[in-house]
Amino acid sequence: MNNPLMLDGRKVAQSVKDDLKEKINDLKEWGIIPKLATILVGDDPASATYVKMKSNTCHKIGMESERILLPEETTTDELLDVIQELNEDETVHGILLQHPVPSHINERQAFDAITLEKDVDGVTSHGFGATTFQLGAYPCCTPAAILQVIDYYNLNIEGKHAVVIGRSPILGKPVSMMLLNRNATVTISHSKTEDLSDVVKQADIVVAAVGQPKFVKGEWLKEGAIVLDAGYNPGNIGDADYETCYAKSSAITPVPGGIGPVTISMLLKHTVQAAIKQSEALVTH
Amino acid sequence: MNNPLMLDGRKVAQSVKDDLKEKINDLKEWGIIPKLATILVGDDPASATYVKMKSNTCHKIGMESERILLPEETTTDELLDVIQELNEDETVHGILLQHPVPSHINERQAFDAITLEKDVDGVTSHGFGATTFQLGAYPCCTPAAILQVIDYYNLNIEGKHAVVIGRSPILGKPVSMMLLNRNATVTISHSKTEDLSDVVKQADIVVAAVGQPKFVKGEWLKEGAIVLDAGYNPGNIGDADYETCYAKSSAITPVPGGIGPVTISMLLKHTVQAAIKQSEALVTH
Repeated sequence: MNNPLMLDGRKVAQSVKDDLKEKINDLKEWGIIPKLATILVGDDPASATYVKMKSNTCHKIGMESERILLPEETTTDELLDVIQELNEDETVHGILLQHPVPSHINERQAFDAITLEKDVDGVTSHGFGATTFQLGAYPCCTPAAILQVIDYYNLNIEGKHAVVIGRSPILGKPVSMMLLNRNATVTISHSKTEDLSDVVKQADIVVAAVGQPKFVKGEWLKEGAIVLDAGYNPGNIGDADYETCYAKSSAITPVPGGIGPVTISMLLKHTVQAAIKQSEALVTH
Repeated sequence: MNNPLMLDGRKVAQSVKDDLKEKINDLKEWGIIPKLATILVGDDPASATYVKMKSNTCHKIGMESERILLPEETTTDELLDVIQELNEDETVHGILLQHPVPSHINERQAFDAITLEKDVDGVTSHGFGATTFQLGAYPCCTPAAILQVIDYYNLNIEGKHAVVIGRSPILGKPVSMMLLNRNATVTISHSKTEDLSDVVKQADIVVAAVGQPKFVKGEWLKEGAIVLDAGYNPGNIGDADYETCYAKSSAITPVPGGIGPVTISMLLKHTVQAAIKQSEALVTH
């Protein structure tokens, strides 16, 4: 019997925040307070909770946040105007547009209106390209959290076969590119994949990013695989069937307490990085 | 014994050009001639030949081209100025910066300075992101050529397992994303991949994009695999060992005469598409 390593996201998140607090203190000596602007359109209660949580976490570690609430009936053009103002506001270092926006708004256009320098949530198509080409953009926060867990626990991925299940613009696609840039061999699978369990069987590392509760079964896994579960379904249930996957794996993230808690800390990390970069740019000019 | 289908790139390219000639004639009735600007920095003879070939092919099908030759000692800033002028020139619909530029130039910065609307060679990081997210950008020409061959021959890729060997920004990465968007399961392998031949053995479709002559061996292939060889090594030699791969495959592109001839026709196709889009934008405003 193997004794799998439980990958503790709360510990990872704490170490990130400890590091950030130091950086934030350093910045304050220069009179700079990293600031995240969040935009919430409409009054979806789950989204409202997420945004509040993000903004509270900012304050807890000494950052500022500006919460912008827009009514349900906001048009795409009105939203674009708000984003443009924030792009130009030198006190704002990062911009987060809470997904999803009401369906009458062109969400992609709104995301892509965020200037690359402030796209700390990694949602722009340009940011995706620049992340893939390793040009210093901020990646999406959940993929970044997955990499952070890998690094914290020193998991060896170079040359290994990672199978990503899911291909969304904010999770499956970017995490695939990030694992590839770390020299993993990467397979991207999805709803149209034939014989998915056979594909997963090849994996040294499985990234579950499919958005369906208990989707990945232990019997699909190669003995000793690493399971990184980015799922977060109603009732705090992951995309992997934890019990059966645990038994087959060498290391696994639980849900809750795995990738989830690290995700918000990535948003803060990117905002601090953005504050540092934008301040340096001001000094240079 | 199987009887593999030889995928004839010259036939594919001809069908693309026939279609383009009609579109170009239509545009001429509106007084619009699609125009590609090519920039060559320095005097590498191979690059000079490529650029000349591209510009000649433009003229042959009734398009215009503007060839800009810059001296070896051109600085990044000077090159950026030239690109900016072309971005603003309404008579230019597409811009191609011939790779590679002299090593003292920041090539990535120069590529990314090309405006998305005129990036007909698909080299910008933004274009890569917008291609991946299917936002109507022009993909890189070799990946586009691979998809064109797939479409011309009606090869079934949905749900199938494609293994791409290589992960360059202009070939391996974009073709992976394009195959994924067509519902293939995609594995991206590379120089750090462990047990590459085992990985290739899983493939229904192999894309050879590694830049090493006769790299992919027939014995690596699953019986009946489709081999798409994007390699073009000195002496007109592909990345696949043609004889042994032919024997195992169900369909295969030769080198020369496979993906290569289709690639230039993709550049022309994107330029014509850009001319149509930019003219429509002018009419609408």
